[in-house]
Amino acid sequence: MTYQDFLNHKAVLSADLAAVAMARQAGDLIIRKGRLVNVHTGMIEDQTDVIAFKGIIAFVGNADGYPVGKNTKIINADGRYILPGLIDSHMHVESSMVDLASFASGILPHGTTTICPDIHEMTNVFGLKAVELFHKTAAHIPLNVLAAMPVCVPSIPGMEDAGSAITASDVGKAYRENWVELQGEQMNFPGVIYGDPNVHAIGGESLRAGRVMTGHYSSPDLAGGLNSFIASGMTACHESTSAREALAKAGRGMYVQQRYGSAWLDLPNLLPALLDNPGMDSRMFTMVTDDVTPLTIEEEGHLIRVLREAVRLGVPPVQALQMVTLNAAQLLEKERWIGSVAPGRAADILIVNNLVDFKVQSVFSGGILVAEKGCLKVEIPPYDYPDWSLDSVHIPLQKAGDFVVPSPGDEELTVRSIRLVPGMVFTREEMLCLVPRDGQLRADFSQDLAKVCVIYRHEKSIPVEDRRSIAFLKGLTLRENTAYASTVSHDSHNLLVVGTDDEAMALAANTLKASGGGLVVVQDGSVQALMPLPFAGLMSLKSVSDAALELKGVETALREAGCPHDSVEMTISLLGLIVLPELHLSNKGLVQMKDGAPPCFVPLFPE
Amino acid sequence: MTYQDFLNHKAVLSADLAAVAMARQAGDLIIRKGRLVNVHTGMIEDQTDVIAFKGIIAFVGNADGYPVGKNTKIINADGRYILPGLIDSHMHVESSMVDLASFASGILPHGTTTICPDIHEMTNVFGLKAVELFHKTAAHIPLNVLAAMPVCVPSIPGMEDAGSAITASDVGKAYRENWVELQGEQMNFPGVIYGDPNVHAIGGESLRAGRVMTGHYSSPDLAGGLNSFIASGMTACHESTSAREALAKAGRGMYVQQRYGSAWLDLPNLLPALLDNPGMDSRMFTMVTDDVTPLTIEEEGHLIRVLREAVRLGVPPVQALQMVTLNAAQLLEKERWIGSVAPGRAADILIVNNLVDFKVQSVFSGGILVAEKGCLKVEIPPYDYPDWSLDSVHIPLQKAGDFVVPSPGDEELTVRSIRLVPGMVFTREEMLCLVPRDGQLRADFSQDLAKVCVIYRHEKSIPVEDRRSIAFLKGLTLRENTAYASTVSHDSHNLLVVGTDDEAMALAANTLKASGGGLVVVQDGSVQALMPLPFAGLMSLKSVSDAALELKGVETALREAGCPHDSVEMTISLLGLIVLPELHLSNKGLVQMKDGAPPCFVPLFPE
Repeated sequence: MTYQDFLNHKAVLSADLAAVAMARQAGDLIIRKGRLVNVHTGMIEDQTDVIAFKGIIAFVGNADGYPVGKNTKIINADGRYILPGLIDSHMHVESSMVDLASFASGILPHGTTTICPDIHEMTNVFGLKAVELFHKTAAHIPLNVLAAMPVCVPSIPGMEDAGSAITASDVGKAYRENWVELQGEQMNFPGVIYGDPNVHAIGGESLRAGRVMTGHYSSPDLAGGLNSFIASGMTACHESTSAREALAKAGRGMYVQQRYGSAWLDLPNLLPALLDNPGMDSRMFTMVTDDVTPLTIEEEGHLIRVLREAVRLGVPPVQALQMVTLNAAQLLEKERWIGSVAPGRAADILIVNNLVDFKVQSVFSGGILVAEKGCLKVEIPPYDYPDWSLDSVHIPLQKAGDFVVPSPGDEELTVRSIRLVPGMVFTREEMLCLVPRDGQLRADFSQDLAKVCVIYRHEKSIPVEDRRSIAFLKGLTLRENTAYASTVSHDSHNLLVVGTDDEAMALAANTLKASGGGLVVVQDGSVQALMPLPFAGLMSLKSVSDAALELKGVETALREAGCPHDSVEMTISLLGLIVLPELHLSNKGLVQMKDGAPPCFVPLFPE
Repeated sequence: MTYQDFLNHKAVLSADLAAVAMARQAGDLIIRKGRLVNVHTGMIEDQTDVIAFKGIIAFVGNADGYPVGKNTKIINADGRYILPGLIDSHMHVESSMVDLASFASGILPHGTTTICPDIHEMTNVFGLKAVELFHKTAAHIPLNVLAAMPVCVPSIPGMEDAGSAITASDVGKAYRENWVELQGEQMNFPGVIYGDPNVHAIGGESLRAGRVMTGHYSSPDLAGGLNSFIASGMTACHESTSAREALAKAGRGMYVQQRYGSAWLDLPNLLPALLDNPGMDSRMFTMVTDDVTPLTIEEEGHLIRVLREAVRLGVPPVQALQMVTLNAAQLLEKERWIGSVAPGRAADILIVNNLVDFKVQSVFSGGILVAEKGCLKVEIPPYDYPDWSLDSVHIPLQKAGDFVVPSPGDEELTVRSIRLVPGMVFTREEMLCLVPRDGQLRADFSQDLAKVCVIYRHEKSIPVEDRRSIAFLKGLTLRENTAYASTVSHDSHNLLVVGTDDEAMALAANTLKASGGGLVVVQDGSVQALMPLPFAGLMSLKSVSDAALELKGVETALREAGCPHDSVEMTISLLGLIVLPELHLSNKGLVQMKDGAPPCFVPLFPE
């Protein structure tokens, strides 16, 4: 449901809601005698009843004697806690590697009832078409979906070939069509603060349309740079990594979206901003997941996991709850819809056992009991995706010879290579001395030297020009005759292949060509593990559980292939993300971003 | 400036703001070295500089070394306090008896930089035309004007003749045309909670248009009634009179607009909600003026007077300040525009001496120094009002005989009369035994018995049918040969005349016919004091100071005419307000509202 849907629904229903609250008419849901955690006042109200009608809360208080209809569902909270549904104000569905229907099915049992998906990944593949398609897929899902418009596609124009590009006019169109509710993360903070006209043209569209603009400000400059970024319109940011940064942002009127995803675990480093300043107003603090794998959802839950962690780290439970409910609703300027258990709001309600474990016992989304004791109670039908969205890996059949790196000479020479740092988003640039053999530079597993190749995959009529690039990689510790390939390769999501053997690399690439994308591990001539991701080459249409199992298979195979690190597939997926330091590979070549200088192409063989 | 104006302006300016924040470009306003009261964090930041450019804040922090242009205005705060401009989220300009230009000139020196005028009174006179006209008058005034759409015109359809009626379709039109920003106070709470379809149709327009809906809920029912009212869409209310009510509303997600006007002084009764619950989240609490006379503005200030009072009563200063800045901005869902001194927000900034007296030394509105040490520093041009708006008192010339009350018989008889209770908004119904003389029932000053008459005044071609009514009034203690008349007569603002003598009443009425409306005191055959209110019969075009002087003249004359009570003209102006208990007079007759029953016509001579 979008906000306008909610408003229209409430406009039709207001007299009924009034009647239900006045006990002239029965509600269709009554939750009896819970302990309401009141996020407006910060107080807990014992023995509280909640009545809802057609998805909207009509009454909160003592409902003894209120009428019960034959269709009224009665739930006895029996002194357990009543909470508002949780709001994740910044996240990417694609990171969980399933489509929206599966994602919703996976997270609803954990109590997240509102998400703000920044559909950055699928938009890199399909452009504005992805935005419209995503909007459609959200239509019948019992989850509030406030889509956020991607505004940095491609990440750096001219330095990579993405599937599409998003212009200011696209952004304006998405707002006019109401495909999206807010502006997604503006990652190009250099473009903002140094006044790139295209970047400001996009911001202008968001401003004129009155949309909340989220940011991604990861510079250490908390003076001019931060002010400049906020002054340009962004009022929320999930990129803080220290309490100092968090405090600086909150103080300048920017909501701090404290991140605690699968891999980026900033929350513990940010909370001291609150914990060390006990008198501080905490309304500018929220919590988000950003990126979580299906495994995290399966094993630990979704936003509730973040809430638990905040409480475990010492935040008072009601304050922590405000950070994923009312504060987030205020960030989104949607507090008349979501974020509290109060009359007129959507009946997005959780019943939990206590305020320590936050064990979710019942989840209501729009008044419907969608989950109980961890089990989904509604059927969320699969979306019938158009063919084009399931057919996005367009590469020629690969041969081993396609991965050969010819040497410019016969002598030992210096090669610029990427060093992957497990668990980190950045890489290091490293100069290697390699000796050619038979006119080629080869991978060598015995020296932890792999090849990495990025192959353009987005055009249906395969371009004559190959549009690929290849380089060398250290730090992955792959065994011999091994390759790993992925179409999840930020941000442009071209096909990324790493390997110690050209034959294995070709097999890995061809396997994903056949599966329509995904992750694959090849060793000794055969596929060890495959996770097909046919939707945009990024997402499975299976359930979160099945995706988690498949991903576990891939991770196990990667471990057996010589990579001992946790979630190494996520680290690999950033090897093509050219907005990060220090050296990355786009399909157009090696891109260096070092020492605060703007990104630039650098040759494989330095002069 | 409206919100959309601000957004458009900021969209054009964003690259410049970014450049100013980055010190690549000079701002046009620098405030140096103040103590910033940070309403986002609740903390105070010493030695803070603020830079603005073309009305928008670009930078907050340490601006040492930032460029200064030849047009840069530099203000040294010298350790004084820097505050956001104050936001009055519910008020009526008409209550101050001057037009918007004069009102703005009067309040800007006191630090109010945003008002949400519910233009209920002028809309009762002119209907939707008033809404459009008011919007136009706001265009060039250095004050943020978020007009609120009146939704209860007339107060009770069919029981009085107002100048116009507002329908759901009018409300929808005002939103589409962007003449108004939010929904004005929904006073018809019985209509809301008992499901009047016309009332819900109006609410439906506000909901579909996504507008914030303010309320006026004055029932003691804090269970079903309050829930019903909030569930129907209203999320703010200024009608609480006790801490219990305030707490109940806040807890149900309704912003409490604590009122402290000239006559309705609820604030001290509401603050215990906060003061007695020190751990409570105070974000749902705001403060408003609702109705202030020009005398109050002249002598005590505007919203700053309310802020001072809250601090005097024990609210911590920063928390009190939040109640008239950030909290109000969140109520209005406009915190990206107003309510804090932060980058990207309007440069609405106050410099005050300390956080006890809150003596306002400088006021910036949209980056312009609009006032200094209590003096206006900008010229606010008078608006050139259309003739129709200055010509709204259409009554036939009155003769003494028009005020005669013929007796139905010659014997002593029972007459239903109104007892005015000084300082209270309600009246009492009182049965009197009167003896006719010469076939008439007469006023008798020696027994504190006056006549009260309401004369329809809104149609240019004076209706054949007289559309007036007359009754008797106790409690005003007028002397002999005295009359008072007013075209400020809530809600329909017909001409109200009270007096102890028919000749005097005719002279009073004819004086206002000639002046185009206003307040007048007549005694012993001559006009003792006249305050002309030519604009809609409600507002002067003079300054707040001049209006205050004239009002003082009327109050003095009223005192000399026998009424010792403070601001008795305000109490008189409610004698026609038929939504109040117990007995009031509309131009159609006596209306009783008693014992919780709905209002009904009652005869002057009970059976």
